[in-house]
Amino acid sequence: MSSLASCLFCKIVKGEIPCMKLLETDTVLAFMDIGPIAKGHCLVIPKYHAVKLTDLPDDQMADILPTCKKLAVATGAEDFNILQNNGRAAHQEVDHVHFHVIPKPDDKEGLGVGWPVQGLSKEAIATKFEEMKRKL
Amino acid sequence: MSSLASCLFCKIVKGEIPCMKLLETDTVLAFMDIGPIAKGHCLVIPKYHAVKLTDLPDDQMADILPTCKKLAVATGAEDFNILQNNGRAAHQEVDHVHFHVIPKPDDKEGLGVGWPVQGLSKEAIATKFEEMKRKL
Repeated sequence: MSSLASCLFCKIVKGEIPCMKLLETDTVLAFMDIGPIAKGHCLVIPKYHAVKLTDLPDDQMADILPTCKKLAVATGAEDFNILQNNGRAAHQEVDHVHFHVIPKPDDKEGLGVGWPVQGLSKEAIATKFEEMKRKL
Repeated sequence: MSSLASCLFCKIVKGEIPCMKLLETDTVLAFMDIGPIAKGHCLVIPKYHAVKLTDLPDDQMADILPTCKKLAVATGAEDFNILQNNGRAAHQEVDHVHFHVIPKPDDKEGLGVGWPVQGLSKEAIATKFEEMKRKL
């Protein structure tokens, strides 16, 4: 199991730092976010230390979404967002993969979604599509 | 397999509406978003018709995150967001579960993240925690 001594979330996994634990499986841990942007805001993390989703082995992923789903139900929220940020520019604050489960009860609470549609032409999208296809 | 005749994404799954298809497995389909907020913005959807994540059976989830990971690598993006919206208030526009893979190259492109920290007391968080625990 990959772990990093200086990582806040690895310390929570090891029990060196306490958390309000909601769920645990062999591969994931779920707990309350202590700086919530909505009541019920919580996190699902793989126990395996990986900074970004692209660093996480596929076999460490299986329990993540079923756990997010259970938590979403438990929040009681009708509307909610699942968000996973990778890199500082993308708002990642702790360098260990984490999935936010964030209720969206109203305009004031929950994730603010900025959606800067780029107005790309179909040709520009197709060009990027071909580039990506070559890498898959 | 759950499907809805009037659903845009079900039509894409059935090939009734074309898409720029990136990847496909038995349970998921991945294609370019045609209203991208960043170059490389693409979607992963379960083939099974479910409106929200809370409606999607666990056995339809396994391929979603490994596919998001492959796409994120293919975009070439260093930083990126994975976002899944549930409900109009949470910015869901098509009523079929979809995961956005959105590169974040700079301030102008990609997801804008609004983060309205609620300043909840530890007691308020703990109260919600206990309520959620009872439902898990």
